Amino acid sequence: MTTIREVELQGHIIDSLTFTRVLDKIMDLDGEFEIISFKIGEHKSDPSYVRLAVKGRDEAHLDAILSDLHRLGAQIPEIEDVRLGTAVKDKVVPEGFYSTTNHPTFVHQRGTWIPVEGIEMDCMIVIHDDHAVCTPLHRILAGDLVVLGPRGVRVIPPERPRTHSLFEFMGGAVSSERPSATLIHQIAVEMVNARVQGKKIAVVAGPAVSHTGAAEALAKIIRRGYVDVLLAGNALAVHDIERALYGTSLGLDIKTAELVSEGHKNHLYAISEVVRCGSITAAVQQGLVKSGIMYESVVNSVPFVLAGSIRDDGPLPEVITDIMVAQDAMRELLKDVDLVLMMATMLHSIAVGNMLPSYVKTICVDINPATVTKLIDRGTAQAIGIVTDVGTFLPALASEIEMLDVE
Amino acid sequence: MTTIREVELQGHIIDSLTFTRVLDKIMDLDGEFEIISFKIGEHKSDPSYVRLAVKGRDEAHLDAILSDLHRLGAQIPEIEDVRLGTAVKDKVVPEGFYSTTNHPTFVHQRGTWIPVEGIEMDCMIVIHDDHAVCTPLHRILAGDLVVLGPRGVRVIPPERPRTHSLFEFMGGAVSSERPSATLIHQIAVEMVNARVQGKKIAVVAGPAVSHTGAAEALAKIIRRGYVDVLLAGNALAVHDIERALYGTSLGLDIKTAELVSEGHKNHLYAISEVVRCGSITAAVQQGLVKSGIMYESVVNSVPFVLAGSIRDDGPLPEVITDIMVAQDAMRELLKDVDLVLMMATMLHSIAVGNMLPSYVKTICVDINPATVTKLIDRGTAQAIGIVTDVGTFLPALASEIEMLDVE
Amino acid sequence: MTTIREVELQGHIIDSLTFTRVLDKIMDLDGEFEIISFKIGEHKSDPSYVRLAVKGRDEAHLDAILSDLHRLGAQIPEIEDVRLGTAVKDKVVPEGFYSTTNHPTFVHQRGTWIPVEGIEMDCMIVIHDDHAVCTPLHRILAGDLVVLGPRGVRVIPPERPRTHSLFEFMGGAVSSERPSATLIHQIAVEMVNARVQGKKIAVVAGPAVSHTGAAEALAKIIRRGYVDVLLAGNALAVHDIERALYGTSLGLDIKTAELVSEGHKNHLYAISEVVRCGSITAAVQQGLVKSGIMYESVVNSVPFVLAGSIRDDGPLPEVITDIMVAQDAMRELLKDVDLVLMMATMLHSIAVGNMLPSYVKTICVDINPATVTKLIDRGTAQAIGIVTDVGTFLPALASEIEMLDVE
Amino acid sequence: MTTIREVELQGHIIDSLTFTRVLDKIMDLDGEFEIISFKIGEHKSDPSYVRLAVKGRDEAHLDAILSDLHRLGAQIPEIEDVRLGTAVKDKVVPEGFYSTTNHPTFVHQRGTWIPVEGIEMDCMIVIHDDHAVCTPLHRILAGDLVVLGPRGVRVIPPERPRTHSLFEFMGGAVSSERPSATLIHQIAVEMVNARVQGKKIAVVAGPAVSHTGAAEALAKIIRRGYVDVLLAGNALAVHDIERALYGTSLGLDIKTAELVSEGHKNHLYAISEVVRCGSITAAVQQGLVKSGIMYESVVNSVPFVLAGSIRDDGPLPEVITDIMVAQDAMRELLKDVDLVLMMATMLHSIAVGNMLPSYVKTICVDINPATVTKLIDRGTAQAIGIVTDVGTFLPALASEIEMLDVE
Repeated sequence: MTTIREVELQGHIIDSLTFTRVLDKIMDLDGEFEIISFKIGEHKSDPSYVRLAVKGRDEAHLDAILSDLHRLGAQIPEIEDVRLGTAVKDKVVPEGFYSTTNHPTFVHQRGTWIPVEGIEMDCMIVIHDDHAVCTPLHRILAGDLVVLGPRGVRVIPPERPRTHSLFEFMGGAVSSERPSATLIHQIAVEMVNARVQGKKIAVVAGPAVSHTGAAEALAKIIRRGYVDVLLAGNALAVHDIERALYGTSLGLDIKTAELVSEGHKNHLYAISEVVRCGSITAAVQQGLVKSGIMYESVVNSVPFVLAGSIRDDGPLPEVITDIMVAQDAMRELLKDVDLVLMMATMLHSIAVGNMLPSYVKTICVDINPATVTKLIDRGTAQAIGIVTDVGTFLPALASEIEMLDVE
Repeated sequence: MTTIREVELQGHIIDSLTFTRVLDKIMDLDGEFEIISFKIGEHKSDPSYVRLAVKGRDEAHLDAILSDLHRLGAQIPEIEDVRLGTAVKDKVVPEGFYSTTNHPTFVHQRGTWIPVEGIEMDCMIVIHDDHAVCTPLHRILAGDLVVLGPRGVRVIPPERPRTHSLFEFMGGAVSSERPSATLIHQIAVEMVNARVQGKKIAVVAGPAVSHTGAAEALAKIIRRGYVDVLLAGNALAVHDIERALYGTSLGLDIKTAELVSEGHKNHLYAISEVVRCGSITAAVQQGLVKSGIMYESVVNSVPFVLAGSIRDDGPLPEVITDIMVAQDAMRELLKDVDLVLMMATMLHSIAVGNMLPSYVKTICVDINPATVTKLIDRGTAQAIGIVTDVGTFLPALASEIEMLDVE
Repeated sequence: MTTIREVELQGHIIDSLTFTRVLDKIMDLDGEFEIISFKIGEHKSDPSYVRLAVKGRDEAHLDAILSDLHRLGAQIPEIEDVRLGTAVKDKVVPEGFYSTTNHPTFVHQRGTWIPVEGIEMDCMIVIHDDHAVCTPLHRILAGDLVVLGPRGVRVIPPERPRTHSLFEFMGGAVSSERPSATLIHQIAVEMVNARVQGKKIAVVAGPAVSHTGAAEALAKIIRRGYVDVLLAGNALAVHDIERALYGTSLGLDIKTAELVSEGHKNHLYAISEVVRCGSITAAVQQGLVKSGIMYESVVNSVPFVLAGSIRDDGPLPEVITDIMVAQDAMRELLKDVDLVLMMATMLHSIAVGNMLPSYVKTICVDINPATVTKLIDRGTAQAIGIVTDVGTFLPALASEIEMLDVE
Repeated sequence: MTTIREVELQGHIIDSLTFTRVLDKIMDLDGEFEIISFKIGEHKSDPSYVRLAVKGRDEAHLDAILSDLHRLGAQIPEIEDVRLGTAVKDKVVPEGFYSTTNHPTFVHQRGTWIPVEGIEMDCMIVIHDDHAVCTPLHRILAGDLVVLGPRGVRVIPPERPRTHSLFEFMGGAVSSERPSATLIHQIAVEMVNARVQGKKIAVVAGPAVSHTGAAEALAKIIRRGYVDVLLAGNALAVHDIERALYGTSLGLDIKTAELVSEGHKNHLYAISEVVRCGSITAAVQQGLVKSGIMYESVVNSVPFVLAGSIRDDGPLPEVITDIMVAQDAMRELLKDVDLVLMMATMLHSIAVGNMLPSYVKTICVDINPATVTKLIDRGTAQAIGIVTDVGTFLPALASEIEMLDVE
């Protein structure tokens, strides 16, 4: 007993492969379809529109199909209100809960579409009066009204930009065989444009930024005002401060690339000295730390989150050792971010990627192509990967920004 | 004004390169030496003995040289008691503190050599009455008596085993071009021997163990009694339980390698269902979870630590979200461990490596050679690296163990 | 002065993204289009049909657009004969020459569509009477009639298979985080099916097959009749024969993973002994070589090409040292191949990939994801990549084939 | 029935680990030893001297031990003439042939030590009158007098330099976590010093130099006179010329990083146009090629070898398609080279590494650590690896050289 339901697609559904993916998915799931209406935009800026009748073997089959189509951006024209379930216990979801994508999302509630606040992937949507809030599992409380899905939920997948920019020509491409200087120039252009337009730039950085001798270059980029948020771990801050205090990173002299005598103690001294001051901020204010990434962040009032990890020594006072608290602090800083530059850290890149809406421009720089592959595999499909050496990348980026900045 | 001091080397100092490293280090630091006594063992089991006079430009220069020599195992024959300093504040070290290696270490205190308990690298030594305790920076308390070094401290670097075993022929080698089946056989032999001798085996595992379909193989190894301690993160446990409940890992069906409809929700459901039960242990006891790594760990009373990380969803009830608490829990379980098998996780491998004494046999299995390189660079020099695919490695290891076990 | 021309798309143009790519390309190149006719197949087996009017700024602009559309499979309904140019010199192409894709291709000549023989990418099409022959640059002779393009040329890009098979779900995916045993099972199924259907299987293998101890497993697969063509270099054959003669590969004992005394000479001895016999075939016939990959190839009459490279010692008698001669020998053996299994060699994988039509099923197994990425980047887009250790992969594959074979 | 023989070690045998390796090897092979004389140099420049009595179970056992010790640099004081065998056939070695290391080597012949000419690893030594010539297997001719070993052969392993230089502190280290700018500065210093001292610099480069947009930077280094020999393959030259003619590398515009319309034809056009001119040299002289690596090589009379490989299109006229001929041409150019910079090519790096004596300073730059690991594993133990992106490395190196050059 076949059941049928109509769905609509609109926007740049050809470019963004939405149309293809929707038909594909129907056939993959053994459904059928008929095209009812079809209008393709002829120009780059014209949206397209398609209306399809989707057929399933039975109600359950059709529901499974629609659930997947919905995540691709298909909408059900006859609009219903979302269905809700109640969490019976903290961190326990009701059966049939709706799991979010990282695309902008709306829920239909009492006759009107309301936007879901703070969208990120793999979360629930909780309704509070007339607000719909994207809520990670650890913040679900007993009694929360959780959206069951997908009826009454609308997802708007990103449209591929058609203007010539860094983000246009690289769809998930991860190769080291691209013209590095050109890519660096284009990243600099993106950052300068973001700055001019008052957009918010976040930097996510691993300790290799310090080990490869690129801390001063990142410090310069911060000093010029190109970083609005810094997300890192204990190690980045420790080795940056170690370098500021002793000229070494993990005991290796940055200027000579040689291990110095007793250099293995330097990072522990660095932590201890900062603890003695009370905090990194205090260490900067008291004149202990006089250069580097953390120094510039403090001096230029760039907010940062240092999230703990199990391999940390110390850690430094500002490091948030409870990782769920750290996650929430990162979420807070990531609000309204427009451009994220991730460098030399798989852990923090994936963690941040998980919290980003799909419209945030995301650049992932790593010498290991696996970092970028994994980031994209884990759902941060908008990320573009640059496989390069952060130790040569950051100085080149700082120079490019400086040149563009002067113009 | 040259100053001179004598140092001694003994043990398998030729094999283990101690002799070479000591002379090297003296010359690197612009010191000089004279060999006073020299006796090399002729057989594999004979120890050697060397006594050197080391000369420095002045007291400070000589001290710097001796500090580095000491870490290599050189001992100063005229024995002094350790010098101590007091921590003025929690997590603040006294000037000139002694930073530990991961080698067995003794301190000379009131005329006698006492062993340092719980040795691991990059820690301090705190004296409590007649105990010397290796103490990470985060556990230093105001008032602690901290060893200043290196006088009165003795370090015993590991001697390279001369018997034919896996650990003999691979000194820091990290290549994918070795006979895989032979290496797997040798690891199985090590594990079976450890078992027979009542030694303690720890397994450190990343979520790729589940994604590559190897969870059942690891479960079998646990069931046969070859794992005494399991160290992992939230992700391993989540995806293992996801597989036990729904047959998928990150939504991919393990038996078909295809993404299933709505599979992206499975890991969240898995967490939620375990939360509903109260804990992983409860979920096993209540019959929810009936197979896999966590199931076998619970059923076979294998203690585990699941340490949190900022990319965690959930997390599961047993996950320790404060990373310093998690570190200490891991330390506790790692006591007396003899053999550690690290698989498919850079973060946990380095974290565990940091806590291991240098005499613990350590095998690091990863498809990315960078994981092993980094582990060794970070000081876990005893680790041997096997660059292979954990998804084929674990089933082959389980078979080898089974075959050896029967014999 | 706008010019317009109509193009047609047919087949599984939605699935295979042809439709999307065509519209995309038009917009990327600043052209415009109007959809004249549009019919989408509702079932998996139904083809679709689209007719578009494409507009360019002028004739040259439209030509550039059509040239690119053509490579995507768009056809120009009003059919013209191909235009031809004459090569003025050996290895010199006429201006405006048509460069082939690796898709099945037809040229319209004297009113009829004739298939291009031996299609591979980056070649020319030469017309000989009523034959059209895909011709690499090094075989272009002065006087050859070379197709200029793209008018009168028709390209049929592959359609994505919709049946559930290994090749369906992995479009260019290169991740190490997939269920290895499942993938190996699926490859075995593909091979067994190919065998049953009388299809031709080629194996391309690098020397790591021997170094990782997997030579016996590949030998077993050859012995069971699952290899119709073997393509490799000198090194694979040398180390396979070294192992057959002395039990070592590059001097490392395969059974103990230890370097043997004087083992560094073994590969030179192996070459020298084969030279003494006259050839590998003779060495097998004379009883010198009694096992391994080359032994089974000779005994089972599997044709092989061993292509030289500048790092070769020796080389062995059968090695073709002129690389253009080797290329042509490989081309000859690759004719009519249906399935190619490439293992642990970037050089040979890319070389073979360059010669394969896009409908040949291609599996690339390597521990380094970069090998697969590069293969796909270089145009072998149909390749699926398995990131695993050939030393564990091949024994598991041999077992799977054996089990399926018995059934 | 134990047999005994004395061996001597001299030079910087402590630093260079020769002493340790010798004792180690004796024990590994179940031999015994007694130290007869032992004198260690106290200063960096002082050589050491050790005389050992080595005992074996019997003559054969002792021979096996001595054969391995000999490769480590141990010499037998009671000097005998080398023993010789005759090659019975071209490319066939006599039983017991001596296989060379890549260290400077001398043979004792008619009472005098004569140096082996053109030493490289894995070759034979052929005696021609009073010359001893290192001879690869493919050049062994029937009737050649081939050294049997190791008696009468003396090997001088390299001593680790003690002056502070790039080559001192990095023994086989392959990590991406080092200060990149510092390393690049040090390489520039090495190159400038080599230039000043009239030493010969060879560059080995893969096509990624062009794809990453670094061709102009390498061209600049050649123009400044820092390259005496260029070794590459067809692909480097093709894409460099493609860029010079059309601004693209593999069809990707270097200045915009976008694929250009019909760009896939550019490399074929580039080859064809050069063929039309007759050669690369002619193409430069006729004004077709006006910039880039090949242009500067021709204009500055830098000799080059372009060696063929089976993945080549074309190839270009100067490419040597017979790989054994190419090898010998490379050998010829590598004579007297003092410094080799290998970039972004595993195949050519290993091929060149195989031909280099161990005293040639060798720097291997690659984004893939496996390239360096494999180079060192294959015997080029003197190589230092820089894991970085050649696209950012070369411009930075060119700038550093320019700055140092001006001074």
